[in-house]
Amino acid sequence: MSDFVHDHPALKWRSGAAHRELDHLAVEEPLEIRLGGNRFTVTMRTPGHDEELIAGFLMTEGFVAAREELVELRRVRDRRGHPEPNIVDVILAVPADALRKRLRRNLTISSSCGLCGKTSIDALRLRLEPLHDATVVDPEFLLGLSARMRAAQEIFARTGGLHAAALFRVAGDGSNGAAAPPDVLREDIGRHNAVDKVIGHALMAGKVPLGGTVLMVSGRQSFEIVQKAAAAGVPILAGVSAPSSLAVELAEELGLTLIGFMREGGFNVYCHAERVAER
Amino acid sequence: MSDFVHDHPALKWRSGAAHRELDHLAVEEPLEIRLGGNRFTVTMRTPGHDEELIAGFLMTEGFVAAREELVELRRVRDRRGHPEPNIVDVILAVPADALRKRLRRNLTISSSCGLCGKTSIDALRLRLEPLHDATVVDPEFLLGLSARMRAAQEIFARTGGLHAAALFRVAGDGSNGAAAPPDVLREDIGRHNAVDKVIGHALMAGKVPLGGTVLMVSGRQSFEIVQKAAAAGVPILAGVSAPSSLAVELAEELGLTLIGFMREGGFNVYCHAERVAER
Repeated sequence: MSDFVHDHPALKWRSGAAHRELDHLAVEEPLEIRLGGNRFTVTMRTPGHDEELIAGFLMTEGFVAAREELVELRRVRDRRGHPEPNIVDVILAVPADALRKRLRRNLTISSSCGLCGKTSIDALRLRLEPLHDATVVDPEFLLGLSARMRAAQEIFARTGGLHAAALFRVAGDGSNGAAAPPDVLREDIGRHNAVDKVIGHALMAGKVPLGGTVLMVSGRQSFEIVQKAAAAGVPILAGVSAPSSLAVELAEELGLTLIGFMREGGFNVYCHAERVAER
Repeated sequence: MSDFVHDHPALKWRSGAAHRELDHLAVEEPLEIRLGGNRFTVTMRTPGHDEELIAGFLMTEGFVAAREELVELRRVRDRRGHPEPNIVDVILAVPADALRKRLRRNLTISSSCGLCGKTSIDALRLRLEPLHDATVVDPEFLLGLSARMRAAQEIFARTGGLHAAALFRVAGDGSNGAAAPPDVLREDIGRHNAVDKVIGHALMAGKVPLGGTVLMVSGRQSFEIVQKAAAAGVPILAGVSAPSSLAVELAEELGLTLIGFMREGGFNVYCHAERVAER
């Protein structure tokens, strides 16, 4: 927990008076990712689950296509042999020409947010295949997700500064897994990072593509979140806030069910509503 | 308004029943920035104020140091001579070797979110000078900012999907400008973009460095938001949510006053509280 939260004194003004009090801050630190010893990108993230973050990032951005291509994620050591907390070197089993092609496709090799260097949406459309996933989910199941997600979150309540992403498996036994915690929940200062961590966790556990799942995110659903979900084969993406116009367009085209304003009393389905049906 | 909001049918599930209804979505579209005809970066943004976005981005990321270096921002035309809505070419008056140096300093030329390619926080520290700004603001002035910002926002209420940034000038006449709208307010699907647009607006109006101002942002204050504010010389950065640990560290070091949880009933000052004082 102390990795995620730092205490810092704050001067709090309330009803005309100020007092000094310790406040909990979400920790944010840069993470440098190297590929075969060469600096690849730097991203600001909440420390923790760095390997998942890197695996998920490399996969959802199209640099890695399968678990097997990730040979090793190794923490770089400083001169005295101590591991650097914020530098990880990745050894890939991707043939040099294929990697060059993937790097070129993303225009430049630097992309911490999933957007930089994307040549165009068309290029992305070429890269991603439309989903064919027959998952159907009961509205009741969806209405329960907010509470299940909140129950699994610990940090958010303390700092108010973290985004969360969680993966829920649509149960096949009719129980809808109502009481179960999510398969995995990750929090991060960056929305994309939380999603990358969740997907990286699944990738490293050999569970990608993620058929039969719902990915729930705490914030807005932008183009890039849809892109990341699609890259991992997630059929249903849900968020507590609004999607953007392009998020809906891309989801529609790629066959994802996009759900916004997911609250305990209701939700909005923006496309591919055929996956939401009462049993 | 129609540039910012698209209507899209949504299936709304409420208390056990579904109905179809038009929903307002914040528009998100890619913007390609070229430098002298060469593709520089692509960012996802809410269309509108593109020139401000580009000017602010180039300035806060250290590619442009002054208004004079921005010679022209020109919308690229397609084969038939029609302007491309999402491609802008920028002509800079920066000597080639200086530009190369600035590009190299940011490691790669691609950076849509202000983080990619940042070699390290130390590099950033070298680039940014600590602020010396004697602005002092009354707590009452700060307590009024939320309402002034909300009054100036129109889109947020409609889509729930946009971030906002607004620049307030600390009045010197003792009135604290209580009733006045912000100098400029911009909204965008991306938090950094909203900040870049506000700063770009000021840059193009010849108002940078922004001494004597408060920059208010709708979301969390991360490292990069502090960095952008500092690059424009903003002495006071306020947000409605929590700052990250690194945001506080950087603000402390660069001499910015960082305020979080800015609500109508109170706020928290995380560093450089000397700028907040009752008159």
